[in-house]
Amino acid sequence: MAHINLQNEFPGIRGLMIFRPETAKPLNELVDVLLRGQHSLSPGERELIATYVSAQNDCRYCQTIHGAIAAHHLGGNEELVSCVKHDPGTAAISSKLRALLAIAGKVRKTGKAVTEADVARARAEGASDLEIHDTVLIAAVFCLCNRYVDGLATWAPDDPEFYRQRAALVAQNGYVASTVAAVAAK
Amino acid sequence: MAHINLQNEFPGIRGLMIFRPETAKPLNELVDVLLRGQHSLSPGERELIATYVSAQNDCRYCQTIHGAIAAHHLGGNEELVSCVKHDPGTAAISSKLRALLAIAGKVRKTGKAVTEADVARARAEGASDLEIHDTVLIAAVFCLCNRYVDGLATWAPDDPEFYRQRAALVAQNGYVASTVAAVAAK
Repeated sequence: MAHINLQNEFPGIRGLMIFRPETAKPLNELVDVLLRGQHSLSPGERELIATYVSAQNDCRYCQTIHGAIAAHHLGGNEELVSCVKHDPGTAAISSKLRALLAIAGKVRKTGKAVTEADVARARAEGASDLEIHDTVLIAAVFCLCNRYVDGLATWAPDDPEFYRQRAALVAQNGYVASTVAAVAAK
Repeated sequence: MAHINLQNEFPGIRGLMIFRPETAKPLNELVDVLLRGQHSLSPGERELIATYVSAQNDCRYCQTIHGAIAAHHLGGNEELVSCVKHDPGTAAISSKLRALLAIAGKVRKTGKAVTEADVARARAEGASDLEIHDTVLIAAVFCLCNRYVDGLATWAPDDPEFYRQRAALVAQNGYVASTVAAVAAK
């Protein structure tokens, strides 16, 4: 049971967003720009960064829903998502994404852990300044989301099919639209 | 020097926001709602939560600017801000704010560290569900901001007067407006 009375039964961050729509709106807009906006990194790659950080932070809801959204964007490849979560060093991803995930993993611990060598490695693999910037910000945003979801002790469904179905909706409609629909249906 | 070429000389998160206005807009909107919106916690109290988390995360830019904004809201009481940063247990603040800062300190480490006892203590001191929710979210947002600012190795001015002057502007105009003005002046 959540630490506060959310007055709704939605799991994870959705229950929080329906409780406090005033903060949900800009937070969803931020996530839409970062994970779904026009970009040289695909939505699947950006969702993998979100999933990896959430897994490292041991946030069950976030890693499962964003893992499902990543898999949806990657042709249903749940095996690849699992590999990235557990060992990005050997996962079948580009060297550029591997270098960006290394930066994201440092940001998760503390921003100060990111070194010039980490950034130089990403740049040598072809990463642009914008890709490095957005990787740092995606990692930081999920350090927010993971703490928000677990700090208020929200619940997370067990059924993987729940996350697959939800992932398909979010992949189609985006984060803002998906929450607006939930608030309206409350 | 920042890890990427920001194409501007602004310090801290402002340089990042001018580099990437698309993500700056919703992030500033989120901070305006949380720290400046109508609330039972004063702007000074909410800025103290942001300052405390940023100090615990050892983010120099964020703890100094938000400490200056907190002091501005608290009648210039920089001594109180310093006490809260270093030992909230003995600072001259309400018992409710002390209990909320304890929750914020837990969120900073990991959301899972927040216990039912932490929440019960805050409630016994008069904290509402909304105050508990917003404390968790403010702490989580500053875990984002601290990682963003330090993960990209932005610079921070040394002169305390810089932060006092900037604090007065932000306290008057808010976060969105202050960044919009900087983008326009770029």
